[in-house]
Amino acid sequence: MKHLQVPARTTVAFQGDLGAFSQQASRRIFGPSIKPLPCVTFDDVFEAVSGKKADLAVIPIENSLAGSIHQNFDLLSRHSLEAIAETYVRIEHNLIAHPGTTLRQIKQIYSHPVALAQCQRMLRKWKKLEKVSFYDTAGSVKHIRECGLRNAAAIASSDAARIYGMKILARGIEDNRENYTRFLALAPRGRFVHAGKKTTIVFGLRNQPGALFKALSVFALRNIDLSKIESRPIHGKPWEYLFYVDLRSDIHSRECSNALRHLQEMTLYFRVLGCYPTF
Amino acid sequence: MKHLQVPARTTVAFQGDLGAFSQQASRRIFGPSIKPLPCVTFDDVFEAVSGKKADLAVIPIENSLAGSIHQNFDLLSRHSLEAIAETYVRIEHNLIAHPGTTLRQIKQIYSHPVALAQCQRMLRKWKKLEKVSFYDTAGSVKHIRECGLRNAAAIASSDAARIYGMKILARGIEDNRENYTRFLALAPRGRFVHAGKKTTIVFGLRNQPGALFKALSVFALRNIDLSKIESRPIHGKPWEYLFYVDLRSDIHSRECSNALRHLQEMTLYFRVLGCYPTF
Repeated sequence: MKHLQVPARTTVAFQGDLGAFSQQASRRIFGPSIKPLPCVTFDDVFEAVSGKKADLAVIPIENSLAGSIHQNFDLLSRHSLEAIAETYVRIEHNLIAHPGTTLRQIKQIYSHPVALAQCQRMLRKWKKLEKVSFYDTAGSVKHIRECGLRNAAAIASSDAARIYGMKILARGIEDNRENYTRFLALAPRGRFVHAGKKTTIVFGLRNQPGALFKALSVFALRNIDLSKIESRPIHGKPWEYLFYVDLRSDIHSRECSNALRHLQEMTLYFRVLGCYPTF
Repeated sequence: MKHLQVPARTTVAFQGDLGAFSQQASRRIFGPSIKPLPCVTFDDVFEAVSGKKADLAVIPIENSLAGSIHQNFDLLSRHSLEAIAETYVRIEHNLIAHPGTTLRQIKQIYSHPVALAQCQRMLRKWKKLEKVSFYDTAGSVKHIRECGLRNAAAIASSDAARIYGMKILARGIEDNRENYTRFLALAPRGRFVHAGKKTTIVFGLRNQPGALFKALSVFALRNIDLSKIESRPIHGKPWEYLFYVDLRSDIHSRECSNALRHLQEMTLYFRVLGCYPTF
């Protein structure tokens, strides 16, 4: 399966402007015929699908250097959306400016704070340049384009350079090339059938010794591999957590369905966030 | 033990300006006679102790609403410092302005983005006011004071209002009163003896099914309670993690020292970050 089949012109919401890494991820999952809906914040992305302004959403969930995007874990537990696919995008950062602008003319560098943090080595070389935090990488290219900032550059994807007709001054300026982001595609619950080799669940446990150990035993006893575990605080219950777990297992398999039934004997809260393929 | 005994005028580095919540935490742990060293970033705090500009440091490690301060977990693994004490501070946010300024005159609200995010309910009531992100809560009070910004207010602690001679316009404006931050005091390795009822460790495992389950078994088999588990990505090894675990156990107890020896039979990396008392 090359792409997840959806009707042409299906609207897919994502955070950032056209050219954002999330848009690359949505094309990889759904192919080129979807209609992108850029949103300013992750809240807006979830609201767009919950409020039916978009059919689907694509969100980053984890970066191999920066770690989990915790806000999106919290939004997953607040909204009634399901994961229907995942993909991985290698993050390549480029220094982008107006055509004709040279590196010597640059006085300011705009980008998302995480992108600025991932290009420390190059930024130390250009230490006289002012760093400006912006809400999005692609949006920073759009901004210096639209405001005609000829002494500014932005750090973003090569897609963003192409979309806004800008020039790449330096390519691959990230400190660490092992820089990947994992994205999830989301849909309203029940719209897609659970189908894939990966299952994501969220659960809450009694706050007692050995509780997490017992919960993980349901997978270990059945040789089900966990690819990720993340804990997030429960608001209003200081030092209690929800656990988000990714399983390398199909929810329809006998061992996975048994494990999840076994798990529910000990959870205070349990929800399947999705069972989905990888693109 | 009311405070952790340190020589008078011991220098304690923390992130933020005078009046920061971290300074409150350092006073709670060490008492009033320490000399505060405000730092701009968490990196600066760790560097201050590593480079001997400060004797000790106090850092926030987790907030009951926002979750872990991941940057500080990463800095703990990069620097050779040890945890020597912990404390919990209730975070009360206040709207602070120049004496004589009224709420109607305010056009801008400055604070740290996490503080702004924790006062959404009040900020929605004052939705015409511009929100300005600043690097520190107390620092935003200092800024509007020093720049004479009479149409601006800051969100910060009552300590910050007192220190900079400013007025509290609205008290306790946080959305959720169950808002606590846990702080750790840090010292160069070997300077203090391990002594306390809580032990923090960090370890890395082989990436294989059941690895985390087996690791947690060393504690479950001995009825040692985990109060917190946090995973952070290992740079350069996508989708591999270091696990940070807090144990409600004294490292000198037989069960804890046995558990840690048992754990090291299966870890690729293991380090004790400290065993310490709570203040």
